[in-house]
Formats: sequence, structure tokens, C-alpha cells
Amino acid sequence: MKFKTHHLVFNTKKRIDFINITQEVRKVIKESQIKEGLCLVNAMHISASVFINDNESGLHYDFENWLEKLAPHDPIEHYRHNDTGEDNADAHLKRQIMGREVVVAITDGNLDFGPWEQIFYGEFDGQRSKKILIKVIGE
Amino acid sequence: MKFKTHHLVFNTKKRIDFINITQEVRKVIKESQIKEGLCLVNAMHISASVFINDNESGLHYDFENWLEKLAPHDPIEHYRHNDTGEDNADAHLKRQIMGREVVVAITDGNLDFGPWEQIFYGEFDGQRSKKILIKVIGE
Amino acid sequence: MKFKTHHLVFNTKKRIDFINITQEVRKVIKESQIKEGLCLVNAMHISASVFINDNESGLHYDFENWLEKLAPHDPIEHYRHNDTGEDNADAHLKRQIMGREVVVAITDGNLDFGPWEQIFYGEFDGQRSKKILIKVIGE
Repeated sequence: MKFKTHHLVFNTKKRIDFINITQEVRKVIKESQIKEGLCLVNAMHISASVFINDNESGLHYDFENWLEKLAPHDPIEHYRHNDTGEDNADAHLKRQIMGREVVVAITDGNLDFGPWEQIFYGEFDGQRSKKILIKVIGE
Repeated sequence: MKFKTHHLVFNTKKRIDFINITQEVRKVIKESQIKEGLCLVNAMHISASVFINDNESGLHYDFENWLEKLAPHDPIEHYRHNDTGEDNADAHLKRQIMGREVVVAITDGNLDFGPWEQIFYGEFDGQRSKKILIKVIGE
Repeated sequence: MKFKTHHLVFNTKKRIDFINITQEVRKVIKESQIKEGLCLVNAMHISASVFINDNESGLHYDFENWLEKLAPHDPIEHYRHNDTGEDNADAHLKRQIMGREVVVAITDGNLDFGPWEQIFYGEFDGQRSKKILIKVIGE
């Protein structure tokens, strides 16, 4: 059995952002020399997501707009979590809809993906340094 | 270590549909001869889901009704993604709520499931051929 | 390859509740003697969740309040699932937002976690005995 652990670090300029990390994940899988197995990719911070969807900027605009309706940032006082001095309660909620992690299959040494699948880091409370974990296991 | 990779193909008659795939997953696990391990089941298309919930038609009606409220199909022009010529932005959103994948445990050669757990393919933009991936790893 | 399977049982006093299970998961990982691998933690019932977020009581209040808006319990007659005699259709919906399972990495024999990550059992139809599965695989 083989294993590989790798971290990515992001510090987005915007509070909310979506970053395509598919090539970084492919690179880690290649370096692991694992031909058959599973790869976990997860946000290590609880106001961010890792998810798989379309690499299309219009859809990313729709995601942001939609999440803002389902879990609005304002009014900040609406959330008890923000009584602690934070203003990011909405980010914790948005992350639940978009998910913390993805688990992807490795077949013949590559991501076993459909034609449109791309992996994204979803940031909901950015402008500070945050980490992603990539863990590959297999043979 | 043992591995097995299997694909299922669906072409639903309706745009939105839920299909029980539990028996197909059990069959792949049995064929893999893996006694202890993990099984990943994921939609390979980004407007569809794999999820675990109840095999009850009333609940499936409720899911469809609820998802339509949270992420309405119409008006199509509401979504920037649909400026590309697509009309399925809502399907990309619905899939985020229902999830892309499930990871299930294999114990003693079987799905290690609670009494009501059933695996479903959730289609949100059907009437065309789409794939699911089943990947089993273990020993 | 090593494996460990463990179950936790909960019977919450309240219908909706969030219980921190991080220490229980750490204990199972330690007992497994697995140094590198993956750990799946999932609800075995379909009206409950396992998720990772902040251990902050204000946020948990916000989660409950928010989920009640997105998938209200009342009126019970609103849901076809409740025509079966159940009153928990909303719990099946809430669980889809919060998720069924988490998959976490094990590195150097420990949970490979960010600074604020904690694992929670999310109960949406409690006051009866329900189970969680912890499955560890690795080496």
C-alpha cells in the first residue's frame, strides 16, 4: 500500500471565490505513483469547501448569488455565531451546502473523471491563509 | 489489496428522476470479492447526484418539490450559466444540495448499512446518457 | 492492510441535536493502530447527519434556525412522506443539506485536521436509538 499527503495553501483576494485545483490534484496523484486507489481532497478550514462541478464562470456567479440568498451574509447580527465577534456565520452555512470534501477514484494512475468534472476550492471567508489537504491511498 | 471499477449508464425518460441503485452496488461489491474496505459511488456528470436516503415515493416527490423551491428551473434567464445556451443551471445547483458521491463501508463482504439506507442516482437534467462510477478498494 | 469497524449509539433527548464525536473517532483510530489511511464516519439512519464544522454553540443555534427555514417541520401535511404516518419528512431533507458522512485522513496515526475541525453527529429526528458507523482502513 502506498500513501501520499499534500497540502495546498490559498489566500484569496475576495471574500468569496472559486479556484480550480484539478491540475494540482492530478500532479499529486502522479507523484504518488498510485495506479489504483482513492484520493480525498478536503478543506481544512470550516468556512470553505472542496467540490466538483463545472468550470464555467457564469455558473460560479450563479453559485455565489444563490448561496447569498440561501445563507445571507447580512445582517450580521442575525446570527448568534457572530456574537462571538466573528462576521462569518454565513460562511459556515454556505460551506455545508457546497460540502467539505470530495473523494475521487484513481484508475490506471489518473483521476477517473467524467468529461466535465473539475475540482474547486470554494472560499466563503477569504483574504487570509487557508489550507487544503490531499490524501492519496492505494497501490 | 484488491480493486474493482464499474460503470452504470442511465438515460432517464424524465428531466428529474431518482433511481435506486443499491442492488447494482451490492453486485459489484460481491464480484470484487473484497471482504473489508470502502466503496465510492459517484455521478460522473455534474448535473446529477448519488445520495443515500429512504426508498419511499412520497419522499422522492418531496425532494423534487423542495429542490425546485430552493433552486428553481424557471425563469431560465435568471441564471448566467444559461447565457451559454444551456438551460440546466438549476441542475448544477440541485446537485450540490443532494451531493455528488457516497462512500460506504464494506464489512464481511457486504454493504455495512443501517436498516433504511438505500443508494439513489439523482438525475436533474436527464433524457440523455449519463454515467455513474463504482470503485471498490480493500482486501 | 488493516481495518477497524466501530459503532456508536445515540438517543438524544431533543428532536434536533448536535453532538461532538471527535474524541470517539480519535479513540477508534488509535485502537486501529493504523498510521496512514482513511476513516469514514457515517450516520446509519437517514434522518441524521455526520458533518465537520465549528464547536461553537451559537453556530449550532444558527444551524438549527437556518435548517428550519430551508426545510420546515410544520405544517406536517405539507409533505407527502408524512402521508405514510411519519412526521419526519423535514428530517430527511435537513440531512441532505448537512450530509450523511465525512471521510477524514489519517496521517502519523492521527486525524489530519485543520485547527477548528470537529466532527459532529447531527440528529434531526431523535428521541430514539440511532447508530453511527466508523470504518478505518489503512496500514
